[in-house]
Amino acid sequence: MEDNGRDGIKVENGYGFEDDHEQKKKEKEEGLSVERIFENQEVPSWRNQLTMRAFVVSFVLSILFTFIVMKLNLTTGIIPSLNVSAGLLGFFFIKTWTKFLEKSGLLKQPFTRQENTVIQTCVVASSGIAFSGGFGSYLFGMSETVAKQTTEESGAFKNPSLSWMIGFLFVVSFLGLFSVVPLRKIMIVDFKLTYPSGTATALLINSFHTPAGAKLAKKQVRVLGKFFTFSFFWGFFQWFYTAGDGCGFANFPSLGLKAYENKFFFDFSATYVGVGMICPYIINISVLLGGILSWGLMWPLIDTKKGDWFPADLKPNSLHGLQGYKVFIAIALILGDGLYNFFKVLSQTLAALFFQLRRRYVTNALPIADHSSPESSRISYDDQRRTQLFLKDQIPTWFAIAGYVAIAAVSTATLPHIFHELKWYYILVIYIFAPALAFCNAYGCGLTDWSLASTYGKLAIFVIGAWAGSTHGGVLAGLAACGVMMNIVSTASDLSQDFKTGYLTLSSPRSMFVSQLIGTAMGCIISPGVFWLFFKAFKDLGTPGSKYPAPYAAVFRNMAILGVEGFSALPKNCLYLCYGFFGAAILINLIKDSLNKKWARFIPNPMAMAIPFYIGSYFAIDMCVGSLILFIWEKIDRAKADAFGPAVASGLICGDGIWTLPSSILALAGVKPPICMKFLSRRTNSKVDAFLGS
Amino acid sequence: MEDNGRDGIKVENGYGFEDDHEQKKKEKEEGLSVERIFENQEVPSWRNQLTMRAFVVSFVLSILFTFIVMKLNLTTGIIPSLNVSAGLLGFFFIKTWTKFLEKSGLLKQPFTRQENTVIQTCVVASSGIAFSGGFGSYLFGMSETVAKQTTEESGAFKNPSLSWMIGFLFVVSFLGLFSVVPLRKIMIVDFKLTYPSGTATALLINSFHTPAGAKLAKKQVRVLGKFFTFSFFWGFFQWFYTAGDGCGFANFPSLGLKAYENKFFFDFSATYVGVGMICPYIINISVLLGGILSWGLMWPLIDTKKGDWFPADLKPNSLHGLQGYKVFIAIALILGDGLYNFFKVLSQTLAALFFQLRRRYVTNALPIADHSSPESSRISYDDQRRTQLFLKDQIPTWFAIAGYVAIAAVSTATLPHIFHELKWYYILVIYIFAPALAFCNAYGCGLTDWSLASTYGKLAIFVIGAWAGSTHGGVLAGLAACGVMMNIVSTASDLSQDFKTGYLTLSSPRSMFVSQLIGTAMGCIISPGVFWLFFKAFKDLGTPGSKYPAPYAAVFRNMAILGVEGFSALPKNCLYLCYGFFGAAILINLIKDSLNKKWARFIPNPMAMAIPFYIGSYFAIDMCVGSLILFIWEKIDRAKADAFGPAVASGLICGDGIWTLPSSILALAGVKPPICMKFLSRRTNSKVDAFLGS
Repeated sequence: MEDNGRDGIKVENGYGFEDDHEQKKKEKEEGLSVERIFENQEVPSWRNQLTMRAFVVSFVLSILFTFIVMKLNLTTGIIPSLNVSAGLLGFFFIKTWTKFLEKSGLLKQPFTRQENTVIQTCVVASSGIAFSGGFGSYLFGMSETVAKQTTEESGAFKNPSLSWMIGFLFVVSFLGLFSVVPLRKIMIVDFKLTYPSGTATALLINSFHTPAGAKLAKKQVRVLGKFFTFSFFWGFFQWFYTAGDGCGFANFPSLGLKAYENKFFFDFSATYVGVGMICPYIINISVLLGGILSWGLMWPLIDTKKGDWFPADLKPNSLHGLQGYKVFIAIALILGDGLYNFFKVLSQTLAALFFQLRRRYVTNALPIADHSSPESSRISYDDQRRTQLFLKDQIPTWFAIAGYVAIAAVSTATLPHIFHELKWYYILVIYIFAPALAFCNAYGCGLTDWSLASTYGKLAIFVIGAWAGSTHGGVLAGLAACGVMMNIVSTASDLSQDFKTGYLTLSSPRSMFVSQLIGTAMGCIISPGVFWLFFKAFKDLGTPGSKYPAPYAAVFRNMAILGVEGFSALPKNCLYLCYGFFGAAILINLIKDSLNKKWARFIPNPMAMAIPFYIGSYFAIDMCVGSLILFIWEKIDRAKADAFGPAVASGLICGDGIWTLPSSILALAGVKPPICMKFLSRRTNSKVDAFLGS
Repeated sequence: MEDNGRDGIKVENGYGFEDDHEQKKKEKEEGLSVERIFENQEVPSWRNQLTMRAFVVSFVLSILFTFIVMKLNLTTGIIPSLNVSAGLLGFFFIKTWTKFLEKSGLLKQPFTRQENTVIQTCVVASSGIAFSGGFGSYLFGMSETVAKQTTEESGAFKNPSLSWMIGFLFVVSFLGLFSVVPLRKIMIVDFKLTYPSGTATALLINSFHTPAGAKLAKKQVRVLGKFFTFSFFWGFFQWFYTAGDGCGFANFPSLGLKAYENKFFFDFSATYVGVGMICPYIINISVLLGGILSWGLMWPLIDTKKGDWFPADLKPNSLHGLQGYKVFIAIALILGDGLYNFFKVLSQTLAALFFQLRRRYVTNALPIADHSSPESSRISYDDQRRTQLFLKDQIPTWFAIAGYVAIAAVSTATLPHIFHELKWYYILVIYIFAPALAFCNAYGCGLTDWSLASTYGKLAIFVIGAWAGSTHGGVLAGLAACGVMMNIVSTASDLSQDFKTGYLTLSSPRSMFVSQLIGTAMGCIISPGVFWLFFKAFKDLGTPGSKYPAPYAAVFRNMAILGVEGFSALPKNCLYLCYGFFGAAILINLIKDSLNKKWARFIPNPMAMAIPFYIGSYFAIDMCVGSLILFIWEKIDRAKADAFGPAVASGLICGDGIWTLPSSILALAGVKPPICMKFLSRRTNSKVDAFLGS
């Protein structure tokens, strides 16, 4: 569903493409034939799959997940897959509700896996906007706070406001949905693309709705609930000690003051411990490696060149000083990795397409699949039944095309009013190319589970930024174009994942589509609302070193500046370092792909390495703690760790995430925490004691 | 072994008198006949029970336990039973050693339960000195630090010094051993007293030496080791944040700053969480209740009378102010409870003795036991075999009497040279009455597991203090007399417990006696040494509010002042409050004894309530956390909690206890922690930030 590589970081969720465990599960399922188990169960009509209760639950969960995604957006930008939690919690809510109704004799409609899929789809569509809306990247990158941190074009800003954000999202978010509808059958039935996340979600939902699955799900929900509660109260407890800057557990110098100054410390964040448990080990290690390389080695070294490479009297956040190296080297790594993968996925896409089409031409074949997919060599009972139901409820192609054109027209007319720098012809060009790119992304995601949405977005930044030029507000035009592009391609891959899930759970494509429409509409309101809450509650949002630094906002803005102004923005020697890291990112990827799987998994991920470059490695330590916990747990009891690890992690993430709701309300209401837990060196402490004593 | 009520607080260890679980275990054992299981195993001669390796291990463990007991002495004075840990660790060390030797083919003598008993006895005798030596009570109460806190007789002090402390302990600690030897057979074989702690220890040792027991013991040791390590490193970690007063986790205002000011906070002490796990729930609840009653209610109320009941311009530690109420009300509670139990145990003792002697006279009976003991209605195989071996190795009565007289003579001649205020005739009087009191204590302890050593000590304070009078240094004389008395009666009950253990493990009384002699000699050197380390390393030892307030030192000194000077020392209305609490303590006990068991266990313990009166209830919260953990654990898995609870608790206590060794060495070496974790209110924090910013 959600692209796992939302920020360009591929964060598999343990159900990923290369996961042996999942593979075995799949094989087992194949052997048993899932649909035979469900044979006696009637599939409701597509209208009956869309229930009121499903959308009520979706709405509640959307708010929950939007909070979580928003928090992640604004802290580090690493967003793990929350599909498992969404599926689990959706199941739990409806099941409780139907059980309750059943007991009171009021139950009219039983809870089906199709309904569960509808909830899942709706929640993911809605919380997906929290990512593709760019609140942590392009959209917030337009704000004054971020603009002030850069010296170039700092006058060109557009501060967030609830009205234009909602308007903007409404006119751009629905395009992706329509662009991919006509290709649905090709992707799912003809090409039989795997869509690992979508498949995993479907497996989860199917397993919940078998009697044994419900029992396990119940246990998992209980575990999730426990850790949710713990994590929520832990967040609450921490809050009391945060009266003032640098106070509280988030500033605990657990590795000593020297390490703390270089941003090496465990910040007691339940969220990132959970994220660490979900992310694969190599991602966590990569992040830590990146942190050690940058804050442990490079920045201290570059800092010694102060006065030589860059003026010594700069403000600490000036991009002409050390901060510039941090941001641009990170960008170089991200671009290098993104570009490599873009071309890799593109070439795979084209090659696969070529083979598909040729075979079809040669054999004039029925909808059968390519050889690369192991499960498609025969038409099983499952496939027959699934295909039959998938093709039953059609969405007419004329409807999709008409929808796309209509929305594109509205959008082209409206957007220049929101962003004056974004001319209508830029938008038109984007919308002409978008369907092709959306197709590419949906196809690539089906193959590799890797959505390149943010890479396409960056492409738009450079192209439109350069086209507009610095005199015509290229920075803002670029960022806005990025938003338009990202929304289309991201939604397209999301919807394709959903269709795969729907295919495997016998859900109607039509009900999926409606659910996505409703979910997207919800997201267009919830996400700006939640962001607005953060924005109003935390005054220093987007400031480096604060609680919510929103690192990608500055990164995106600086990319736009780079696109518009070229390399003149960089401090001395920074360009050479950038070249080096750009090359290194490509090299690392090349090495990874040339090694066999056994060794390739030890090669770090350059994009994951880039994140701590900018914000420090405290969250890397959290994530490694999460990894360590999971690792030890797996050593002790592999089966239990596999079954409950994701539940524990989700509980930790959700609890801490939802705590931000009361926390921001408290901040808005002006309720301040009473105590400051301060960390002072012995010398400072004796000074302070003397000061307080006098 | 160790009296569980070392400071007058009855701290049962889960193997106590009224414990159903233990009772069942005992019954089961009876059914199986333990000695039949061990029938094939040869009992080594008493000389062979005393091995070099046993004493080496004893020495190491003695140091460990002395550190723990000393730390507990100097923090709150609540000392749980460490018998289980001593037994467990003794077994583990020797077993590892013999296994190693067995593998290398060098093993000459197998590890027997008799040898294990010898270690246990030696360790307990040695670490017992850390308690009966009065380092947290009478002995340290003589020091200048404590004397300065009182206004009366503050000139009469005797500072600790390694030489006189060792000398003092050597001349008083051996008397108890000799006084109880002649009564051995009467207590164990004739009266068949239960000695719950001694019996529990014997059961533990017996169970370890059966094959199944060894397996469980191994698991327990592993759990103990884990928590030992955790607790040690937790102590180490905490250390880094304690640069300065009021810094670190020990000052964490976990319940808010207001509660912190009134000493309600969780201080993250692994020791007291462990202690809470070992102590029965009612003790923990009592301590918490006492804390709420005193610091939550009474002290704030009395403080409002400042300027009326007592002058407002006093130093905070003056006994004429609030501090006086704290100390004397605590003393009233302790004395009320102590006195009630003294008379209760005394009357039980006399009644039981009367029945014993009468029955013996009537039936002219063989050594059979009284009816009250359920296991003694028949002479089982176990009893026969145990009695036979117990009577084999006799210690001649003439030897015991000669030893007692000789040591008493030396002691009477020496002590006045150490304490000039303690005249030789005071000592002589004590030594004439001591054997009777020692017998009473040993007998009472056999019945109830409750040693009244510190109550006898308090008796000596008042009697000798009043006799000497204030002009002749009655305060110091009283405290010194307390030491002499406590050492005798405490050792007597300890040794009796040991004889019971020995009886049940077929250990020779002679080897037990030798082991106690050696253990006591070790203790006379180790305990002052360890105390000396604390005394030198922590300069504010004994100061209220510091890390080591040694609360009982002030309590004992103030009792001595009260004994010498009467009630003139008390601030206004304090006497009436004391009367009230003295009466309340007796009343509570009366209620407890009049209720049936089902309800009696909900009645709090007055002596436990008195401790937080003086030092605050932070440790009560630690202990309740321990209780809570155990409670939840028992709810989840009763069997596991019973098997591993004591091991977890011991691990926590031992790890934190042994951390004080490196911690005091660091303090001695002048290595100071680098960071201060400070807790400031929001207002103070903004002031400090402004100060640091400028």
